[in-house]
This record gives sequence, structure tokens and C-alpha cells, in this order.
Amino acid sequence: MTAGTRRCIVVSTLAEAFFYADHGFDDILYAYPLPFDKVARCADLSERLTLFHVLVDNITALEELKKWPLKRGKNWHVWLKLDCANGRAGVLHSEPAALQLALAISESPGVELTGVYSHCGNTYSCSGEEEIRAVAQETTNFTLQFMEKLQANGIHCPRSSIGSTPSCSHPVPDMAQLSEVHPGNYVFYDAQQLMIGSCKLEDVAVRVITRVIGHYHHRNQMLVDCGWAALSLEGGGRLPTGYAIIEGHPDLKLLSMTQEHGRIEPISGQLDYEKFPLGSLLTLIPYHACATAMMHPVYFIHSDGVVVDTWTPTRGW
Amino acid sequence: MTAGTRRCIVVSTLAEAFFYADHGFDDILYAYPLPFDKVARCADLSERLTLFHVLVDNITALEELKKWPLKRGKNWHVWLKLDCANGRAGVLHSEPAALQLALAISESPGVELTGVYSHCGNTYSCSGEEEIRAVAQETTNFTLQFMEKLQANGIHCPRSSIGSTPSCSHPVPDMAQLSEVHPGNYVFYDAQQLMIGSCKLEDVAVRVITRVIGHYHHRNQMLVDCGWAALSLEGGGRLPTGYAIIEGHPDLKLLSMTQEHGRIEPISGQLDYEKFPLGSLLTLIPYHACATAMMHPVYFIHSDGVVVDTWTPTRGW
Repeated sequence: MTAGTRRCIVVSTLAEAFFYADHGFDDILYAYPLPFDKVARCADLSERLTLFHVLVDNITALEELKKWPLKRGKNWHVWLKLDCANGRAGVLHSEPAALQLALAISESPGVELTGVYSHCGNTYSCSGEEEIRAVAQETTNFTLQFMEKLQANGIHCPRSSIGSTPSCSHPVPDMAQLSEVHPGNYVFYDAQQLMIGSCKLEDVAVRVITRVIGHYHHRNQMLVDCGWAALSLEGGGRLPTGYAIIEGHPDLKLLSMTQEHGRIEPISGQLDYEKFPLGSLLTLIPYHACATAMMHPVYFIHSDGVVVDTWTPTRGW
Repeated sequence: MTAGTRRCIVVSTLAEAFFYADHGFDDILYAYPLPFDKVARCADLSERLTLFHVLVDNITALEELKKWPLKRGKNWHVWLKLDCANGRAGVLHSEPAALQLALAISESPGVELTGVYSHCGNTYSCSGEEEIRAVAQETTNFTLQFMEKLQANGIHCPRSSIGSTPSCSHPVPDMAQLSEVHPGNYVFYDAQQLMIGSCKLEDVAVRVITRVIGHYHHRNQMLVDCGWAALSLEGGGRLPTGYAIIEGHPDLKLLSMTQEHGRIEPISGQLDYEKFPLGSLLTLIPYHACATAMMHPVYFIHSDGVVVDTWTPTRGW
């Protein structure tokens, strides 16, 4: 994922940032609108690492950074979060406030405007490649136009990025003009990305294995030992097969879950209990890999056999 | 909660059971249909503790226990899970299989029928005290009738239990004939229990504190640093105030969440941003305390100031 470099990763929590920093990663972007209570810990990481980046979308956050100058003459590396009509975090690309914020960052002593970051999370409501590409194109256009505006105003800003799993799965050529993309959970994919059209079923590389623990003939259902604590309630059960895809059994539906239980029934007809003996295993393709991976960290095992890292999807909002 | 005894607790995972056992608890009921891969670890706990109880609702699970006789002549303590028309785990109270299973447990060497356990989880779809009491009464009736049937058939079974947060919040007098109840998350309550009618708003003792991290005037919204990783998606946003109750601000709605972000907007009218400065805190009453507590363990601090235990809701399915 990082070409063996342990560089250029994006996190959404400081817990992740510290975890990676403690395990030899550098060049970490904390792609989250800076919470003011976390400035001290961000300063710690900025001073420890060669590159630690924070993200701001308002002038108050910049003021908070300026109150905390970094030691040894280091600069804060700041990305401006831009809302390119995506309806997520970020200062709206078309508002004068966006340019004013960029100018304020670039003119603040001890602070560098490192990049512009846009997250087209609205691709999650797309259906199919064409719609995804349209959002990717619009977000790229607005980001590149904003970069031109910075240049026209003499504001130095070396990097630019857009991303989301769908847009990076179906990129548009103009994205090559950005310095980077943040590609979401492309390593795993999931049922949600399948429904959006980011990937095919055979691309999905995450599974949750569950065990049959109950047969209830009187209501044509069986129980499995996977509830929302393992799978999350993401998707709200709106897949044709409920809260997950049950691999190899398109006729089954994960109807509902409690904390530790899942209830499975056939989409139609009678359940053939002999095919699913008590104690046997079923394989689930979860709706949202991030919500599942959060509960069950995925370990990378290096060639020397030592577990060194957990996997975190690169994400943004 | 346990009257200082460190006894008589219910868990839904073995991880919890081991945690409590390691911290001096005894008499732990693993109130979960026995997963066959966990028999060895259940045997470990059964041999370590004075009382460790498992729960079965089918004859195959009993056979799995019999394959693993406990050391030092100890008996497995088994609760029979009974479905009293609750639509949850358990052998249906009215089926001959229920009595047959009780008989098989009681006649198996190395195994004791310790109790009958019914969980009226269907109280979660009730609205108000009257409906809750009706379900509690029905579940109590069926459980007590089953206990009589056991006695009439010469099957020794000393204990009986029903439970769920709503039923134990509005108990019916006949519940006094049971040996015990499992009272759910009565320690905390939450917005869900409020909607069901188990409690009043002032009874709810769980809060999630969140910070304002974004002001987005162009869409009349603000962002807070609480997403579904903190709060869960329980409730599906169907409260009048969305995914949570925002304490002191009945005019605000937690409209949507991503993993680490929450989007708040007024139920009607314009958001008064001056009342919610960037960096300020809001207090959320979550929809489901269990889903929140799971993410944020609550620590009990003893009078000597030492953190000794985390809190787990007693629950069942």
C-alpha cells in the first residue's frame, strides 16, 4: 500500500497517528478538521516526525495552531480542507472565505500551506461508473480551479488531493494533475462499494466468518454468532440480502442483528437446515469494510514473520 | 450492582467472562447459545470458578458438553434457554423438544440443569408500560408453567429467570416467583429505553461528550467529533432528534454520522452559530447505551481509588 516506504498515509484519529508513528511511519496526514483539544498532541507528532500534517477549514483553527508554535523552528504543515460541493467538511470552494483562509495560512509565521484536500464523499450516493466519474470530474475541476486561484494570488501551495473509494476506483484523466489522491478502502472493498459500482464482487477482499449457533424451525430461521458488535449496522439492512452478503448463498438474508447475534432466514421458501448444521461456518461479505476492520484489525505480517502493523483504510470526510 | 459481592453477573461474550474472572468475579452466566468452538474455554472457566454457567437450547450443544467432561468431578452448570414466544434464541416453550432437552440435560452425567432462562427481547418493540407489562406477564407465565412441567416430570431445576431492560423496569408481581431476573442496562438507560417507556429522561445516566469542529453556514449545519465509531448507528436516526438526544437543545438534530464525524442541524429555522462556538462541547444522550459503552468502557473506581472493573450491561437475547 505504501510501496514499502512507511510514508504517505492518511489517518482520521490521533490514536491511529500515534500508533503508526510509534511503528516507524512518517509523513502522516491527520485528515480531520482540527479539534482544538488535540493541538498539543498534534504538536508532539509534528516535532517527532519529519512530516506530520494537520487539516483546517476555518480561521479559528489556524489561530489555535499559531498559539502553539513548534519547537526547533519547525513549521506546522497545514492542508486546507475544501468543500467542492460535496456537502462534507471544508470551506466552500466558491466562497471568498476559502481564498482568505489560504492567504491567512500562507502568511502566518510558523505555519506552511502544504496542500488542498477535497473529499468527494458524495460519490457514496452514486450508482454506477458514469455518476461516479461525474462527481470525480466536478471535484477535480473545482480543486484545480482553486489551485489556479492560489497561484494567481501568489499563494504558494505545493500539493493537492481529492479522493473517496468510488472516485479513485473510476478516476478521470484530470486527476493526474493533482499531486495525489486518497483512495479510501480500495484494499478491501465491500458490499457497499459493490452496490455503488466501485468494484465487482470478486474484487471484495474482506470477509467475516461466523458460526451457526441456533436452529429455530418454528420461525424458519437460524442464529449465527455475528451481531452488530462484529459487523456494525452500516447499510441498515437495505441490501437484498440484508446486513451482509452471505457468500455462496444468495438465497439467504441476514435479517437482523443484536449485539452478538445475527438472525438468518431464506429470502423465500423453507430453510434447509441440513445444509447449515449447528457449529458450521458461514462467510459474510460486510456492507462496510471500515466498520468491520475497526472491530477486527487486520495485521500485516512481514516476510520475517513479525506482525508489525495494523491496516487502516485511508479515508476522509 | 452486585451488592459488593462480585457474584451473579451475566455476560454475552467469553472475553467479558475471562475479564471478570481474572478480576475476582465468580458465579458468571455466559448467557449465549453455546458456540461449539468455545467449549474448551468454557471448561477452563468452569474448572477455575466456583460457578460458571453455560446456556444451551439444543441437544447437539449438550452432546458437545458431554464430550468434554470437567476435571475433579465438577459438573457443567447448564441453563436451558426457553423461547416464551419472544422470537429470540431458545427452544420454544410449547414444543415437546423443550421438555426433552431439559430431561436430557438432567439425565446426563457430569451435567446439571441449573436453571431456565427466558429473555423477553420483544419488549423492545413495546410502547409504554402497559404493553411492556403484558409481555413480561406472558413470558413469566410461560416460564413458570415450564418450571411446573419440569417438576411434574421429576426434573430437578432450582433456578428460573426472565429479563430485558423494559420488563425489569416495569415488573409484574408474578416475577417474584422466579429465582432471579436479568435486568439489562438499567444502570444507564438511554434514548431507546426512553422511547419504549422503560424510564424517564431524568433516569438516563449515560452521556457522550462531543466537540464542535466545523461551522458550515452555507448548509445551515455544524460538525462535531462524534461519529458512529463513538455512538453506533443504533436507532437508525429515527429519533425526532436523529441519532441521539442533544442535551439542553431539543431544537437540534444529529442528522447523520460517518466514522468520526457527526452532522448537526436545527430541526427548523437557522442555526445560531454564536451559541455553539468552534471548540465548544455538546452532550449527547445516546440511543443505545450498550453500543456506546462497548466503545467507551465505564470504569468503576473503588473507595481506595483503584480502577478495578469495567461495566458491562447484563443482557440476553
